[in-house]
Amino acid sequence: MKICRYNDDRIGLVLDAERLIDVSDALDTLPDIKWPAPLGDHFIANLETMCSKIEVLSKSGKPIPLADVTLNSPVANPSKIMGAPINYQKHIEESEADDGIVSSRPISHISDWGMFLKANSALVGCGDGIKLRFTDNRNDHEMELAVIIGKKGSNIPISEAKEFIAGYAIGLDMTTRGKELQSFRKSADTYAVLGPWLVTADEIVEPNNLNLELSVNGNIRQKSNTSELVYNVEKLIQYTSERYTLYPGDIIMTGTPDGVGPVEPGDIIDCSLENVGSMTVKIS
Amino acid sequence: MKICRYNDDRIGLVLDAERLIDVSDALDTLPDIKWPAPLGDHFIANLETMCSKIEVLSKSGKPIPLADVTLNSPVANPSKIMGAPINYQKHIEESEADDGIVSSRPISHISDWGMFLKANSALVGCGDGIKLRFTDNRNDHEMELAVIIGKKGSNIPISEAKEFIAGYAIGLDMTTRGKELQSFRKSADTYAVLGPWLVTADEIVEPNNLNLELSVNGNIRQKSNTSELVYNVEKLIQYTSERYTLYPGDIIMTGTPDGVGPVEPGDIIDCSLENVGSMTVKIS
Repeated sequence: MKICRYNDDRIGLVLDAERLIDVSDALDTLPDIKWPAPLGDHFIANLETMCSKIEVLSKSGKPIPLADVTLNSPVANPSKIMGAPINYQKHIEESEADDGIVSSRPISHISDWGMFLKANSALVGCGDGIKLRFTDNRNDHEMELAVIIGKKGSNIPISEAKEFIAGYAIGLDMTTRGKELQSFRKSADTYAVLGPWLVTADEIVEPNNLNLELSVNGNIRQKSNTSELVYNVEKLIQYTSERYTLYPGDIIMTGTPDGVGPVEPGDIIDCSLENVGSMTVKIS
Repeated sequence: MKICRYNDDRIGLVLDAERLIDVSDALDTLPDIKWPAPLGDHFIANLETMCSKIEVLSKSGKPIPLADVTLNSPVANPSKIMGAPINYQKHIEESEADDGIVSSRPISHISDWGMFLKANSALVGCGDGIKLRFTDNRNDHEMELAVIIGKKGSNIPISEAKEFIAGYAIGLDMTTRGKELQSFRKSADTYAVLGPWLVTADEIVEPNNLNLELSVNGNIRQKSNTSELVYNVEKLIQYTSERYTLYPGDIIMTGTPDGVGPVEPGDIIDCSLENVGSMTVKIS
């Protein structure tokens, strides 16, 4: 099932690359949240119930063109957005070769670096677009497979990791180059794009073998396959949950392959991820 | 006004170091939240209204001993917890001198590092205690003045910074030493302590001149004054809001003075911050 959030508080079932069905009435059965809110995304925490409602509602709904709506991040309220640094060998090599990709620490192995965090306030959908904030610096696209956690877990073994996945999406880990810490350079508003929608876990049997491709203004920049991940999806879930508890809606951006590069206001980014779909993101 | 959260979903007005009044009925007027939840802490976003209600309710309430309740983090749902690294000169000097304080990047100036993020899932109150997770590594206390943001703001000038402050608390930025990125080493569950309560901004005219002190098992380890901050409170608000939008309930941990050091299970940390109060935190 491909589920999108659009026009801020609407939910859609995506039929194909052109159409969705408005299934927002499913949200009526989602209990309101009282302060203090439990950690995590309330919709993802209730995803199973939501999917049943969506299935029923989709039978009577009328298709709407995707072109007529603004796609937001399918996860609205993660407790945290984690990013895997240096998690493709060829990206490690390009980082060592390119002076424009500044690193104030030795580029070694993900086990030396751990994960970085991106601010929740940076999260947007592909329809929201990216607004560059530090245009004197280089601002790079880093396309990735994003894994969305489905249930609370801590110290999750690799063998059980897939049970904790709600679904997948495309992640764009926008990055300002510079000498500051990763969490700072990767957290400006709109610098965490998640889209175009959430594909539920049952639709992707093998997340570690997906083609991904990014182009800027029609020119291919990044082209790889998640089989090239240094820490694959299950290992990242084990690795992160050893450090902290994962909650429904938490997002793991699994790392970017080689081909990262700068964008400027006016550029158009197109991303596609096998079995997930495609998204277009405008830079301003 | 000193406002605490206790026993998970109760709110109290703190009368003195020993007593609070239960003013939880104020929460009845807080509207429920619908998914997608707006960014930030719902209670802090409505703090002005809450304070009026609390004032009325406190007149008829009966005092409860603080010793009988579990104090939680006064902010439940920040959009982000930011930390200022190397923000006291003497802490910079001890970091250079102590091989146990590992840094994989040159220790220079906060303007070179930017801010780190701590995972929201790490946030607890002093009554919750700290559970050490990586006991083969050194786990250090880093006591700080915590600033709680009261309203949404971006690109806030220094001259207006104080208008964006809801209040203050003590922050304990617990840190596992090691080679990984700050955001990873500082984000284990319970590694962000905020307490003992929120002191509203009106009660602290000059946040940049507060004594702070931390002891472990009765031995003083950290003793300083916020006048020693490299980037002071207003500058940190300008600096962070230039990078990303701040939301109600966002927490800025302003940095730790010298005297950081390891703790072990069974240790007791006591912290006091002038005009805020004192808190005791158990390590397990």
